[in-house]
Amino acid sequence: MSKRLASWVESANSAETEFPLNNLPCGVFSLDGDVQRCGVAIGDMIFDVAAAEVVGLIRLGGDLFKAPSWNRVMSEGPSLWDALRARLIEILSEGSDDEQQASGLLIPQSRATLHMPFQVSEFTDFYASRHHATNVGTMFRGPVSALPENWLSIPIGYNGRASSVVLSGNPIRRPWGQVKRSKEDLPRFAPSARFDFELELGAVVGVPSEGPVTVDEADKMIFGFVLLNDWSARDIQAWEYRPLGPFQSKATATSISPWIVTTAALEEFRVDGPDRERPLLPYLEEPGPMLFDIKLAIELAPQDNEASMIAKTNAKELYFSSAQQLAHHTTSGCPMRTGDLLGSGTISGPAKAERGSLLELSWGGHDPITLEGSGDTRQFLEDGDTVTMTGYAEGEDYKVGFGACSGQLLPAMDNPYEG
Amino acid sequence: MSKRLASWVESANSAETEFPLNNLPCGVFSLDGDVQRCGVAIGDMIFDVAAAEVVGLIRLGGDLFKAPSWNRVMSEGPSLWDALRARLIEILSEGSDDEQQASGLLIPQSRATLHMPFQVSEFTDFYASRHHATNVGTMFRGPVSALPENWLSIPIGYNGRASSVVLSGNPIRRPWGQVKRSKEDLPRFAPSARFDFELELGAVVGVPSEGPVTVDEADKMIFGFVLLNDWSARDIQAWEYRPLGPFQSKATATSISPWIVTTAALEEFRVDGPDRERPLLPYLEEPGPMLFDIKLAIELAPQDNEASMIAKTNAKELYFSSAQQLAHHTTSGCPMRTGDLLGSGTISGPAKAERGSLLELSWGGHDPITLEGSGDTRQFLEDGDTVTMTGYAEGEDYKVGFGACSGQLLPAMDNPYEG
Repeated sequence: MSKRLASWVESANSAETEFPLNNLPCGVFSLDGDVQRCGVAIGDMIFDVAAAEVVGLIRLGGDLFKAPSWNRVMSEGPSLWDALRARLIEILSEGSDDEQQASGLLIPQSRATLHMPFQVSEFTDFYASRHHATNVGTMFRGPVSALPENWLSIPIGYNGRASSVVLSGNPIRRPWGQVKRSKEDLPRFAPSARFDFELELGAVVGVPSEGPVTVDEADKMIFGFVLLNDWSARDIQAWEYRPLGPFQSKATATSISPWIVTTAALEEFRVDGPDRERPLLPYLEEPGPMLFDIKLAIELAPQDNEASMIAKTNAKELYFSSAQQLAHHTTSGCPMRTGDLLGSGTISGPAKAERGSLLELSWGGHDPITLEGSGDTRQFLEDGDTVTMTGYAEGEDYKVGFGACSGQLLPAMDNPYEG
Repeated sequence: MSKRLASWVESANSAETEFPLNNLPCGVFSLDGDVQRCGVAIGDMIFDVAAAEVVGLIRLGGDLFKAPSWNRVMSEGPSLWDALRARLIEILSEGSDDEQQASGLLIPQSRATLHMPFQVSEFTDFYASRHHATNVGTMFRGPVSALPENWLSIPIGYNGRASSVVLSGNPIRRPWGQVKRSKEDLPRFAPSARFDFELELGAVVGVPSEGPVTVDEADKMIFGFVLLNDWSARDIQAWEYRPLGPFQSKATATSISPWIVTTAALEEFRVDGPDRERPLLPYLEEPGPMLFDIKLAIELAPQDNEASMIAKTNAKELYFSSAQQLAHHTTSGCPMRTGDLLGSGTISGPAKAERGSLLELSWGGHDPITLEGSGDTRQFLEDGDTVTMTGYAEGEDYKVGFGACSGQLLPAMDNPYEG
C-alpha cells in the first residue's frame, strides 16, 4: 500500500484530511456568486483548475474546466483523466516548481459554495448488496425465499429519475403519495409516514457507449464515484411497486456528495468480489478486483440535537461491482452517456449495526433504534432529522474521502391538492 | 365538430392527408445534409418555420426555430404555442396575404430528412390500458387476480431509458440478454426469442415543474403527442422484472413518430375517461375530458413481403390520461423537465383484433396470428419484420395524423462477449 504523497499545501498532509494529494476529487465551486467552475479538493482548500488552465499551468486541449460541470472532461476518457491527474500531482507536490504560481489559485473550502459536480444524464439504481436484499426479502417474503430467484445471476437494477438528484446540503421535503394501510380497503393520499435513507456508492459514467461492453471496458468508462443517499418512501413503495417497480417512492430526491473521487484515486483500494454461490454468466466475470474497500458511516441528528452514529459498513460488502452493473446495463444495446449515474444499491454488512437503511436497522419499524447521542428512538425518519453519510478508503497514513453527503428532512407541505 | 381549414397548399386540402391546416405538427428536418431546423408538416410539404423566422414572417421573440429540436419552444408554454399556431394558420390559410413569401419556404417532405423532433430529457412508461393490463395479468397470474390490486387507483408507471429513444425509420437490433427457460435451473445469455412491440401514445412535456401539479395544470404542460413503439424483450423481462420492474427488456429501443401533434390540434377530439369502478383519489380527478379519440393501427411486414394489418384500436381505450399520469408523476415532488416523454402504456381494446402487442395478439405465443397478406404466422417478431404504427383523429372531412412510427427488426449480432 502506497504512502501519503507530500504536498506544499500543508493541510493536505494531515493523516485526518479526506483530501490528501493522493485524492484530488473533482467538484464545481463558486466564490461570492461568481461563475461556477471546476476545481479539485486539496486539504482544506480548492485548487481552481479552471484558473490554472487560463494561466497556462494546465494545458490539455483548452477550455475544459471553465464549465459548471465535469462532463466535458468525463467524456474525454482515461488518457486525458490520467494526464490531468499526473499534472495536478506535479503542480501540488512538495518541491514543485509551480508552487508560487499555483498558490495564488487556492481557495479555502470554507469560503466557496459547492455545486453539482456533474450534470446527471440518467440515473439507474441497483440492488447489489446481498445482505440488504436478504434483509428486505426476509421482511417481505420470509427467510426461505428472501433472495429473489434471479438475484445471484443478475445485477438487479431499475431506472430512477435524474431530475431528482440533488447536491448534499439541500433539504429534502417529506413527500405526499398514495399509501394503503393493511386494514383499509382503499388507498389514501397522505404524507409518507415511513420515509427512509439508503446508503449507496454512485458510479459516474465518463465515456459513452453504444453497444454491449465487457466488465473490463465498463470499468474503464467509470470516471469516479460519489456517496449517494437514495431517499425512499417505504409506504408509497409498498403500495406502488407491483408489478413494474418503485416509482414515486424514489422520486423525491437522491442526494450525492459534492466531490467525485476518481477511479484513479481508488486504484489502491481495489478488492476482489465475493465467492460466487452460483456461477456468473461469462459476460459478468471480472478480469480483476472490481470492488473497493471504502469505509462508510451514517449519522443521524434530530432537529437541534447532536448527531449519533447509527451504522457503519463498507463498499466491499457489495456482491456486484459498478463495472459489472454497467456491463449488464449495456447488454440490451442500451446506449450509455457521459453523466449517467449508477447507484450501487443500499450497502449493508452482515451485522445489525452495518445496515444501510432504517428499514433494516429498525426491522421495518418493529425494533426502533436508539440514538446514543440524544436518547431518541427511530423507526423511520422524523421531521427535522439530518442524515449524514461519510466514506473514505484508508491507506497506511492517509484517507481518500468524499466529503459528507448530508440532507435534512423538512416537514411535508400542506396537501398540495387542497385549498 | 369543426371542418377542415382551407389552405393555399393544395395537398393540405385532401380528405386523406394526415397534415391538413388543422394539424400543423412539429418536426425537425434537414435538406441535402444542411442544418437541422424546425418545421411543420402541411399536406405533403414542410413549412420551414426556421426560415420564416429569419425572413420575419414569424416574430415570437427570436431564434426559436433554428435549433435542431422543439425544446426551446416547448419550454415557453401555452401562450407562445397558441400564438405560433394562430400565426401559422394565418400564413397558410387560403387567401393569406403571406402566400407569395411563404410559398418559397415550402419543402417537399419527399426531399427532406427527418430527425428527432425534440431532445428527450427522461422517459417514463406507464401501464394505463385496462384491457392490456388484464390480458397480461391473466396470462401471468390467471383471470381472478389479473389486475394488480393497485391498478385502479394508481397510474402505474416506471422510469425508462431516454438514451434508447429513436426516430421512426431506425432499424432495431434484436438484443441479447439473460433469459431462463422454465425447464432449466440456470439462466443463459442468448438473443431474445420473444421480441415484441407495444403500441403507445407518447405525451411530450413542454412546461417544466418543481412540485406537485393538478391534472388541469398537467394537461396545460403537455406540448403534444407522438406515436410510440416500446420494443420489448418478453423473455428477458420475465426473468429480470421481480422485484424492481423491467430494465434491460425495455432498453434496446423505443421508436417515436417524426411529428409531434400538438395538444391544440387535438382539442376537438377530447373524450371523457371511462366510468371508474373504484373512486379516484381527488388529486387524480379530471376537470374535463382528458383522453383523445385517436384511431390507431399496426401493420407487420415480413422481410421482402407485403404488410398486413394486425390490430386496430383507439387511444380512448386508456383508463388513465396523460394528464393524470403526469400529475401522479409529480406527487412525490419529482421535478419534470421540458422534453420528458410519457408513454401511455400499451393500448389494447376489448376485442382480440384490438390488442396492442404480439404478447396479447398471440396470447403469449400459444395462439399464433396469421398475416393476411403473406400467409405467414407469428408468435413473436422474426428477423426482418417491419412494424408500422399509424394513428389519426378524424374530423368531419379531415384527419389529424402523426406520420408513421416504423422500425425493422435486424438479426441479433454475434455474441458480443465472444471472439
